[in-house]
Amino acid sequence: MSRIALGLAYDGAPWKGWQTQPGGRTVQDTLESALASFLAQPVATLCAGRTDTGVHALEQVVHLDAPVERRVESWIRGLNALMPPSIRVQWAHPVAADFHARFSATSRSYAYVLRSHRVASPILHGKTGWTHHPLDLARMRAAAACLLGEHDFSAFRSSECQAASPVRCLERLDIAQSGDFFLFSFRANAFLHHMVRNLMGALVDVGKYGHPPEWMADLLAQRDRRRAPATFSPAGLYLVRAEYPARFGLPSRPFEQALDSHLGLRFVSNG
Amino acid sequence: MSRIALGLAYDGAPWKGWQTQPGGRTVQDTLESALASFLAQPVATLCAGRTDTGVHALEQVVHLDAPVERRVESWIRGLNALMPPSIRVQWAHPVAADFHARFSATSRSYAYVLRSHRVASPILHGKTGWTHHPLDLARMRAAAACLLGEHDFSAFRSSECQAASPVRCLERLDIAQSGDFFLFSFRANAFLHHMVRNLMGALVDVGKYGHPPEWMADLLAQRDRRRAPATFSPAGLYLVRAEYPARFGLPSRPFEQALDSHLGLRFVSNG
Repeated sequence: MSRIALGLAYDGAPWKGWQTQPGGRTVQDTLESALASFLAQPVATLCAGRTDTGVHALEQVVHLDAPVERRVESWIRGLNALMPPSIRVQWAHPVAADFHARFSATSRSYAYVLRSHRVASPILHGKTGWTHHPLDLARMRAAAACLLGEHDFSAFRSSECQAASPVRCLERLDIAQSGDFFLFSFRANAFLHHMVRNLMGALVDVGKYGHPPEWMADLLAQRDRRRAPATFSPAGLYLVRAEYPARFGLPSRPFEQALDSHLGLRFVSNG
Repeated sequence: MSRIALGLAYDGAPWKGWQTQPGGRTVQDTLESALASFLAQPVATLCAGRTDTGVHALEQVVHLDAPVERRVESWIRGLNALMPPSIRVQWAHPVAADFHARFSATSRSYAYVLRSHRVASPILHGKTGWTHHPLDLARMRAAAACLLGEHDFSAFRSSECQAASPVRCLERLDIAQSGDFFLFSFRANAFLHHMVRNLMGALVDVGKYGHPPEWMADLLAQRDRRRAPATFSPAGLYLVRAEYPARFGLPSRPFEQALDSHLGLRFVSNG
């Protein structure tokens, strides 16, 4: 047995999220079916961050214990030949036996890509969120500031969230604009269920001159999901990467580089 | 009767091209079906440039003669509510009775967006072409130079092309790079069937160190389609806009601005 980590990119639109379910149609089911063919036996996988229906990944990290040795290039080509084009292994890397895709991860990074334009565009439909409202970048940045650090994020937590605690440490929340596109960059030790999409609902509300920026701190303090705006669309949400201790030596790409390589999007960094 | 021009963006992936056909499943069929509902009677449309299966448009220009008056916003919202998200009217504009989407156009502009990376990405699958070969920008630019101006493009003309003459005037062929993405910008008075995709096949061949740049001039001079590389994938091809005399006053956007607004792609202009 040797432990292998895989970096996986996928288009979430055709899939019912990451996590295996009876009906099939999930990324995990599709990957494990390809692995069963590739290794000629069933193998279980564990991931860094379970994504919901319609949510994309640029680098979902997965680990598994392989009963046979394969070359790195063979993992990539072999599995990709067995999966539809909406899922692609980007890299494979042998890891120490104590590596765990979920528990070794020190943080996760998500991006939300939002297009603001009077009329919807078909081109990145399903790949970006969309609002017909003009958005004020400075207002959204002002609202975002109070969210950084360790907080009880109950106001932005799905009623179906199974986490033991609603406390998370939000290490990064940058907002940048490039023409009609806005990039929201999030990093936290871990995220509650629907946390990014619920934060997006509130940030867009402030950006389109709904509530004032100060309202965000009230929402957070009240810890009441019913006071916050509706969960935003999954279409623009990307699990960009998960961070691991350097000793595991994963070939992950920096956040901005991953976005640039997969989407061609370049943003001026947060002021 | 009043003549109306529409600017239409569409994702070509789910459609069998622009042109109406018995089976339905084309952009024209879908638009004309929406128009029939919106105007409560059948109306015929004519377009600036017929696109093939899988080819996208940022601004296909279409005209029709409307039996009833409608406000500009009503055309946009009304038609978009009747079409799937893969087709969206971007603007509507009343035009003079002598405006003709095809015959009034003085030129057409296409973009080909190509991603060069070792592993395919699922994110813009179907929206960009892909090659696993590294590409040399300078070689492709050198090869492109001989194509500018008026030439017999028989070497890059589909055997099914119905044009009376193989002579076209290529007014622009710029190639730019931004990270893993290459943007090929084409403008001509008109294009032969498969002309851009056939030119792409030859340019990529040079870029990946197949033939030398000088080979392009030979290919062009020989006027023999069988000597040129295979037709490149439709996935990265966009009809960006069509150009019309200023007197028609169409609200078209400049080439770079349209690409930026729909795809978020920004390239440094050609050196």
